[in-house]
Parts: sequence; C-alpha cells; structure tokens
Amino acid sequence: MKKTDLLRAFNVNIDLAVEAHELLRGDADTEVPGVSMEVDNLDHATVTTIKILNEQGVQEMGRPQGTYITIDVPEVHDNNYLTHQDITKTLSDELTELMSLSEDASILLVGLGNWNATPDALGPQVIDKSLVTRHLFNYTPVELQGKLRKVSAIAPGVLGITGIETAEIIRGIVEHVKPDLVIAIDALAAGSLERIGTSIQISDTGISPGSGVGNRRTGINEETLGCRVIAIGLPTVMNAAIIANNCLDSLLDELKTSPALFRLYKEFSPKVFEQILEKALYPYHNNLMVTPKEVDSLIQTTARIIAGALGMSLHPGISTEEYQMYMQ
Amino acid sequence: MKKTDLLRAFNVNIDLAVEAHELLRGDADTEVPGVSMEVDNLDHATVTTIKILNEQGVQEMGRPQGTYITIDVPEVHDNNYLTHQDITKTLSDELTELMSLSEDASILLVGLGNWNATPDALGPQVIDKSLVTRHLFNYTPVELQGKLRKVSAIAPGVLGITGIETAEIIRGIVEHVKPDLVIAIDALAAGSLERIGTSIQISDTGISPGSGVGNRRTGINEETLGCRVIAIGLPTVMNAAIIANNCLDSLLDELKTSPALFRLYKEFSPKVFEQILEKALYPYHNNLMVTPKEVDSLIQTTARIIAGALGMSLHPGISTEEYQMYMQ
Amino acid sequence: MKKTDLLRAFNVNIDLAVEAHELLRGDADTEVPGVSMEVDNLDHATVTTIKILNEQGVQEMGRPQGTYITIDVPEVHDNNYLTHQDITKTLSDELTELMSLSEDASILLVGLGNWNATPDALGPQVIDKSLVTRHLFNYTPVELQGKLRKVSAIAPGVLGITGIETAEIIRGIVEHVKPDLVIAIDALAAGSLERIGTSIQISDTGISPGSGVGNRRTGINEETLGCRVIAIGLPTVMNAAIIANNCLDSLLDELKTSPALFRLYKEFSPKVFEQILEKALYPYHNNLMVTPKEVDSLIQTTARIIAGALGMSLHPGISTEEYQMYMQ
Amino acid sequence: MKKTDLLRAFNVNIDLAVEAHELLRGDADTEVPGVSMEVDNLDHATVTTIKILNEQGVQEMGRPQGTYITIDVPEVHDNNYLTHQDITKTLSDELTELMSLSEDASILLVGLGNWNATPDALGPQVIDKSLVTRHLFNYTPVELQGKLRKVSAIAPGVLGITGIETAEIIRGIVEHVKPDLVIAIDALAAGSLERIGTSIQISDTGISPGSGVGNRRTGINEETLGCRVIAIGLPTVMNAAIIANNCLDSLLDELKTSPALFRLYKEFSPKVFEQILEKALYPYHNNLMVTPKEVDSLIQTTARIIAGALGMSLHPGISTEEYQMYMQ
Repeated sequence: MKKTDLLRAFNVNIDLAVEAHELLRGDADTEVPGVSMEVDNLDHATVTTIKILNEQGVQEMGRPQGTYITIDVPEVHDNNYLTHQDITKTLSDELTELMSLSEDASILLVGLGNWNATPDALGPQVIDKSLVTRHLFNYTPVELQGKLRKVSAIAPGVLGITGIETAEIIRGIVEHVKPDLVIAIDALAAGSLERIGTSIQISDTGISPGSGVGNRRTGINEETLGCRVIAIGLPTVMNAAIIANNCLDSLLDELKTSPALFRLYKEFSPKVFEQILEKALYPYHNNLMVTPKEVDSLIQTTARIIAGALGMSLHPGISTEEYQMYMQ
Repeated sequence: MKKTDLLRAFNVNIDLAVEAHELLRGDADTEVPGVSMEVDNLDHATVTTIKILNEQGVQEMGRPQGTYITIDVPEVHDNNYLTHQDITKTLSDELTELMSLSEDASILLVGLGNWNATPDALGPQVIDKSLVTRHLFNYTPVELQGKLRKVSAIAPGVLGITGIETAEIIRGIVEHVKPDLVIAIDALAAGSLERIGTSIQISDTGISPGSGVGNRRTGINEETLGCRVIAIGLPTVMNAAIIANNCLDSLLDELKTSPALFRLYKEFSPKVFEQILEKALYPYHNNLMVTPKEVDSLIQTTARIIAGALGMSLHPGISTEEYQMYMQ
Repeated sequence: MKKTDLLRAFNVNIDLAVEAHELLRGDADTEVPGVSMEVDNLDHATVTTIKILNEQGVQEMGRPQGTYITIDVPEVHDNNYLTHQDITKTLSDELTELMSLSEDASILLVGLGNWNATPDALGPQVIDKSLVTRHLFNYTPVELQGKLRKVSAIAPGVLGITGIETAEIIRGIVEHVKPDLVIAIDALAAGSLERIGTSIQISDTGISPGSGVGNRRTGINEETLGCRVIAIGLPTVMNAAIIANNCLDSLLDELKTSPALFRLYKEFSPKVFEQILEKALYPYHNNLMVTPKEVDSLIQTTARIIAGALGMSLHPGISTEEYQMYMQ
Repeated sequence: MKKTDLLRAFNVNIDLAVEAHELLRGDADTEVPGVSMEVDNLDHATVTTIKILNEQGVQEMGRPQGTYITIDVPEVHDNNYLTHQDITKTLSDELTELMSLSEDASILLVGLGNWNATPDALGPQVIDKSLVTRHLFNYTPVELQGKLRKVSAIAPGVLGITGIETAEIIRGIVEHVKPDLVIAIDALAAGSLERIGTSIQISDTGISPGSGVGNRRTGINEETLGCRVIAIGLPTVMNAAIIANNCLDSLLDELKTSPALFRLYKEFSPKVFEQILEKALYPYHNNLMVTPKEVDSLIQTTARIIAGALGMSLHPGISTEEYQMYMQ
C-alpha cells in the first residue's frame, strides 16, 4: 500500500515536516509548490530547513505556514559525550536564530507528554533538567545574576492523568504568566525507524492537533495561546502500522521482478492490503507503537541535549563551555 | 515567651483554626466573640467544628468567615488498617456535608506542595491516588458509568519548580475548566507536635496566603478563583521555633515554683528570650521545621485516607465497602 | 518465514510456555511428547496448565521440567474493576496451589526489570504495592499480627543501572536472607499481540536466561539460588520482527490462493524473507519492540492484580474481601 | 543538660567525628589522648583531618581507628555554581588521597538511605547521578574507553521498604561482585545546625551501627564486608532534642549572670531537665528531626557535588574541566 494511503487508512500522523515533504516529493523527487528546502551539512549534523511559504504550500503539506528545521544527528546513538556536546551547540545555534529573542524576553517552557510512559516522557524530562529563573532573582546562581532571561516551566501532564485537555491548562497559565514566547517540547512519532532519537525538529509554528506520541487533541500555537510558540520535537516511536506496511512493500518489490507477478500484484485491491495489516495489528489497530529496547537511555540523552541547548540559547550568561553546570 | 508573641516575632503561621482558637481562649478558656465551637466525640475521631460567624470573629481569629472542621484521629499512628477505614469514612461524612454537591457538579482537585520534599508532598500524593473522570466517560470503570461526578485533578508544583505562583496556575486552569468546586489539599504546619499527622482540617474558606508547609504566597479561595473552594489540610511539620520556645516555657514554669525566681523571671525582657531563640535556631531563623523520622509512611497513610474519603464523597457510585478498589 | 525459523534467525525469545507449545503443535495440532496440557475455562479466565514431564519434554520445549500455568484474562482491558477483582482471586488460587507454602514459610519477592522503562517496569511496580513484613512484626498492621508470613522484597534494577548482573545481586541476598521461596516477577515478551497484558504465566521453574523484556542474562532458579523459585510473568511487549513476519505470512496466504503464485512462492529462498525483514527493522535488527500506546495504564492495572493476588496467597490473615486494604 | 548527657539520655548519635572530638575537648579545649587533629584552610573550604591513632583514641571517641576528614563548605548555601565546582574539586582531591586506588581497582558505590524521605535520600540521589561502568565497556562513552575504572552501584533501600537489613543486602552483593573498595554514601545527623548541608565527612573506617538519618542497625565496614570501605556522609538533619537542649542551655547561661540564680541552677537535678525535654518532644521522644525547609534543593546540590567528585576521583579519564558532562 502506498505510504500516503496507509497513513490515511490508519489515521497515522507524520510529525516531521521533513518526512511529509519527502512523501510529497515521492520517488520522482519533484518540487512541492509553495515550499522551499535547504540542506546544510555540518560536522555531526545535517540541518534541513523547510519553509512553507504560502497557502499553496499549506495545502500541499497539510500544516501551517512557517519554518521547520530538522537537525539530523545519527551519532546521538554513539554514546560519545563530546559529540553530544557538539550536537547541543548546533541545536542551540539553530534555536537562537529561530527564536530571535529580545534581551528582556520572558519564556514559558512547556514539557508535553506523559511522565508515566517512558517513550512519551521527553517533554517532562527536559523540564526537570532546565533552569527556572522567573520567580526570584536572588535564588538564581550568583555569578549569573543580570545575565539570565526570565524562564518559567511546567509539565502539565496528559488528559488521562488530569482529566483536562493539555491545551486548556497551558492557555490558562499563559493568560496569567503572559510570556513573550512559549517553547513546547514533545515526543513525536516518526515515519521511519532511522529517525527515532536522531531527528530534532524545531519550528516556529507551534504544535498542530493530532501530533505527538499521545496525539494531543488541540493545537498549541499562536492562534490558541496568543503569543509566539516554538515547538521542539523528537521522534521516540513509530506507529507499528508503518513497519508492517514496509514489509509488504519490500515483498512486493521482490515480486515485481517477475512480469507475471507484477501483473498479479496490480490485481490486488488496496482493500486486501488493508485487511492484511488489520489482521497483523489486531487487536490494536493504530494503537500500537514500535520503540527501541533502550528507549530509557535514548530519552535521557536527548533530554540532556535539548535542555542544554535551551540553557545556552535562553540565557546570555550561560556559555557554551559551562552550560552543563547549569543543568538541574 | 508567650506563644502569640513568638509566632509574631518569628513570623510563624498557625494553619489549624482549632489551634488559633485555643491560643485565643488562653489558659482562662474564655469565649471568643464571633466564633462558635462544637465538639463531637466519635469512635476513632473527635470532630471539632469552629465557625467564624461575623466580622468580629474574623478580626479575632485572623482568618476568613466560614466553617473549619478538625477531625482528630490520633489512632492514625497505630498502623491498624481497619481503624484507618473508619477514619476514612468519618472524613468522608464530614466532607460530604461540607461540600453539599449537586448530582452533576464538576470538581477540580488541586494537590498543593512540592513532590520533591516529602513533608510537603501530601497534596501531590493525594492527586496520584485519586480517580480522574472528567475527560472521557468510556475510560472510567464500566460498572461505575453514570455514577460518577466529573473530577479533574492537578498537582501544579511549587514556585521553586515552575517559577510561577501556584495560585496563578490554578486561576488559569479554573477559568478554562470552570469547575463548580475546587478542592485544594495541602500539607500544613502544626502548632503542637501531637497534631502532626493526626488533625485533618477541612474548611469551606479555601486557603489563605502564608499557610502550608511551603508558605503559599497567594490565597486560593472563592475571591481569587471565582468558584467555591474547600481546603483539606493536615500538619506534617512544626516550625522549630515553637519547640524551642516550649522548652523555655517549661523551664520557666519550673523556675516559677520559687518566689525569688519568679521575680527574676519577670525582669527578663522579651528581647532576651527572642535572642535565645535566634541563637538556638541560627543560621535558619524561621526556616527550620521539625518532622517525625517516619514522615514518609505518615504521608503515605494519610494520603490514602484523604484520597479514599474523596472517592467516596465525590462519586455516588463508589460505596464505603469498595472505595479502595478505585484508588489509583 | 516459518515462525520458528524467524525466532531463530532473529534470536527472539518466546517467554510463554503456552506459546512455545502452540508452535510445536503447529497447524496439525499434534501432541508434543513429554508434555501434558490441560485447559480449564472459568468465568473471567482460561487457565492452561502445561507440564513438562521428562527429559524429552525438556528437549522439545527448550525449557526446564516443571509446571507452567497460563491464566488468560482478556477482560483485563475492559476497565471493569469488579472483573479485575475476580481475576485477582483466580490468580491467587492458582498461586496458592502452585506455592503450597507451609504456615511459617518465609518469602523473598523479587521485582525484575527496569523502573525507568515503562514496558519493563512491571516487577518493580508489583514490589512497590506489596506488603513487606519480615523486618519487624510491630510495624505490620495490628489486626493482622500473627496472621502474616515473613515477606521481604527487592527490586534490584537492571545491569545498565547497577553494572551488576541481576542474578548476582539476588543470589547474594538469598544467601543472607535464606528464604524458603523466591517469587520473581517479570515483564515478558509475547509471541502474539493478543497476549500482551492478558496472559499471566506462573511457573515453578524460575526464570531462564534470555527471557523477559530486558533479556536477563542469567537464570534465576533453584539451581542458581539454592531455594525454590516461582516465576510470575506477563507479556508487555512483542518483538517487532514478529509483527513484520506476520504481515509477510498474511500476504503469502493471499498469494497462495492462485496455483501460479504458490509455485512462485516456493521459489523464494528463506534468505529473501530474512533480508526483507532486516530491511524493515533497520537499523534495529532484533532490538525493536511493539507495545500498546496505553502501556502505562496496562502496567498499573496488572501490577495491582499481581500484588493483590500475592497479598492474598502469602498472608493467611488477608481475606479476599479486604486484600485491597493492604496494598501499598 | 550537658550535651554528652543529653545524647546519652536520648540515645542520640553524633555522626561527625569532628563534632564528637569537639565535645570531648570541651570548653577547656584539652587534647584527646590517642587522637590527632590537623586543620587546613583552603579558599572555599576548611579541611579538618582527625586521626584515631590507637585503642585509647578508640575508647575516647567511641568509634573505630582510622582517618576522618571533614570538609566544611559553608558557601554551599550560596547558590554560586562556580564555588560548587571548587568544592567538588576539593572533595575529589581529598577522596583521591584517602582512597589511593590502583589503576585497575573495581569499586562498588552504595547509596544508603530512603528515597521516599527527602532528608534521607542523599545516598540514592548520588547513585542516580553516577556513571556506572562495570558491566560492558562498549556502553561507556567512546572517548573514555580505557580511561575508566570498573564501577558498579546500588541503592539497596531501607529496612522498612525491603524487610531486609541493608548490611545483609550489601554483604551478599559484595561476595559476588568482589570489589576492591566499597564507597558508602549516607545522609547523617548533625550535632549543630550550622553543619547541616555544609560538612562533608569522608573516612576510611566505613559506617558504624546506629549512624545515619535512618540509624542503620549494622555496621558497613571492612570487618562485615571483607573489603575496604570508604564512607562519605553529610548531615541533612539534626535530632530535635539537641535544639531543645540548646535553648535550655542558653537560658541558663543568662540566668548564671546572677549569683543567686547560679546557686539555684545548681539545685536542679538533671532529671528535671530531662523531663522538660521529654515534655517538649512528646510524643516523639528521640524520633523527631529538624531539617531546613529547602531540604530538597540542599540534597540536590550536595548530591551533585559528591557524584561529581566521585566521577573525577574514580575515573582517570574524567578531567576536572569536564566532569559535569559525565554526570547522569
């Protein structure tokens, strides 16, 4: 089954703009109207900047106008802490540019996701490690006083824990805290296994409904909150329907090598493939995720990288040499 | 030093109305104008209902007009789970009457306090154990459907964790969730050791600024939230200044037995006592608390009792026999 | 690819004896020599007792001689707490019989697995909820004194957390505590999705090397510990290779309907299927697991059931009506 | 009441050798036979080395022969992270010298205390932040390979959680892991408020029975474990009896200024003071501790310092510039 058909049939979201873009370009690698893409190869990272430029791009990509930056860092798996430092700095550079904060901006960090389910716990773990400064400047590290922006932070939990839509909680807080910028950190669902744990997406469009591991129901963006929203996301799972479909596709690729089979393959109705997938996923339909066995250390490593980059980008007083000193 | 002087000198709060009342009545046990008190002796509990009836009572007691019920349950220390059940039912009875909820009322539970500091973690632990039902009635236990009130719940953390005043967070959420009633659960500071872990206070006045282990700065009450607020509190600590002062008082009681000494005692200026206390508490002044060594099991036991009573009182479908089945 | 070939090629373990037995019986449903099976249908549970009777059975099943009881409880997903109670009692009955404890037996509960990775956290969560009594009888609930067996409990963590083989830790503790019985609770890997969260296996053979979500490396059994070991396991994940292979099988079933295709199908070498799977699982090979999105509530529900059943079975003083009162 | 009498009457332990030594020297500041003391003033720390040299010293000090180093770091309260770095390095220097490890030594870290009670959670929190390397060298950071000693780590919990004496658990593990050195980290009880959070004690004598916040019952030392034991301790609480007694003493100091009163003071029997204290501590006797309100951040800060110093001292490959990169 074509991936786009699969995603529709199983109501599976692709959270990374870079993957949505790949899908649209397809094997022919055609341009997508209203969308620009730029790729930058750095030492330990590939930075892909996708811009949705106009209404046509919005229609094609099915997501809001704005900038989506993906930082691919396959070496995150390598367990080399010096490389992790480089990755942290690269992420910080991209964040700093995308946020373009004024000196006295105040920021609310929001860690989305469920702290009780490891693959969904990225957001809360970033919050745990972040330096919070808004409340009392005399509690902040002495040597940094006057060199910090005002940062507050909350991990609001998920609907199943609170009984309240996460977006409702955040909206209420934003109305009282009145930050200049909200930064929402979330665990995402990937469209391919290679991207789990390795593709950090930052965007200036906030978070759309239906995205994230837990499928947030309501958008968290400038429209709903009334202030700018930067989203930071990283895939930690993939829907199991995709892995199942990839298998079918690979087998069909094999079959296609014979003309007789190719004929036969074309006779199969898409319905047959859908039934095969349904059967393989029974009784979970689209509620099954694949995740690496070492998801706990993957979450810990990437939460450190994101919290470290946030510290450097948000606080002028925190240098790239010393950022680790200020992680909680 | 007289206790009232001590509390003023060290800026120490008395959270229990019943203790504030005792102080006012003094050794002479005089009536306090504008305040009524009623005592009810039950099997495993003594229930003391204090009502602040008018402005004069408000002035005398230094807290808002309303009803303050203290349920004294010294046997909570006994580690007898059958007794704990009885205590739970008594608390539930008192809560049900004080809340007088309509059938279709919606309730927001708020667990105040710091989950990282055991003596202040009562509120968050009650939230953890409570059944949340607001979001989707098909997630609630099948056998209870149609027999539950809408309950949402949040533990918003403390200023030092979020950088945001707790009351601001709650106000924001209340504006969106629009509950009929907020129930705020908080760890309190006692005025005497016997009350630690054993005096459950419920009141219909909400929470005043300055109360609680962590000294919440802003009130959480109908005035600030725009809906009724029931407060449930239990002392888990006592300010160390009180224990120090009690020692001085006891020694002075001894000294008073001789007339010569009594004369001398009266010559001491209060300033001397204050200096003695300051020295004994140095370098912590009023930032030192006393707490039992077994504070972890005390918090666990009382959180179970409070969460159990809330389950029974909030949900018509949860019986007094089966409430433990529905604790999370 | 045949499931047995798949499991071998990808080095995937089947933890449930009942699934290993099904595989051996195959489509033809033949008897397995040296193995007996009995099925008992109860109200909310199907109890399947497999006995490996002799060396031939050991060879066939690839696991130690002994009794493996699987309690299938599909209604665990139903969120009906009354049903959960029934399931708890059924599990307790089976446990009581399998353990056949003397009145004064002492028991060490061992919660295997990684508390930082939700799908592997079943064991530690059961430990958290269990009543521990060995240390001081005056800390146990008053009303139960004299009606409790001596129970100690530990969640030793995993190799990645401690740097020590779990079996080494347990062996060391057993040598000092000298229990009559060790009960090891572990999250397992299923061979089919339906069994995730619904098949509770108890056995008197302990735990074999290579089983469990985290692939414990060393056996935890009478041979290594020197005392009887009962294992309680429940699948919480399935290796992603199985879901991938199931898809291929379903597609091939479809193809087989045409004689031409069946011929073709037989021409494919197993190597081709293995390559297709490898590609679909790249870069994770056999280190990828599938797990339901709601794995956190699944773990919570089943940990309650197992801890409740243990309480009833281990302590004569804990009745089937009141067991929930004694869960921590 | 004299402090030594108080400690005996209330069965209160003084965990810091430097405090026991002060008590013995008394106001007259006499030498203690069999004990040497040396003081070294550094930039942000005062290092006091007490050596118990022979059996006479053992008798006087009531603790085993060996070296007790106290590093006083009052600036730990200052919230200046650069100072915390200096403190970490000082602690690391002292540890390195006291441990005098061979290149290929293997070490077992043991975090004593109760993770559910914040004031007692120092040990478990240090373990959480420490790099564990024993299991598989290919899991250690790539850039450090070949530059790490073998470190394993466990937080065994407390008697109330496991039902097992902590020393039994550790002994069992040591017999299997066979480390060259055990390092036990524990929260202590201070004899004076100034030392809470600020006096780090390291000693080569292990841990004596009765010490620590939770009063470990059995010693954890070379005699019980069969290998060298370094203890790292930091007071996080003080017994409330001491604060009560300090008040009495201060008041008596005031009274002594008049000759008439001094006469009277001498007439009081010690029994009277004991009764006053008993009354002030009722119903907790010696089971009441005082602890700063900000005990959570105090524990977090000092756990970082201790884990950081351990990382530097244990692993030749971890530099004083980069140690924070390797904290978990």
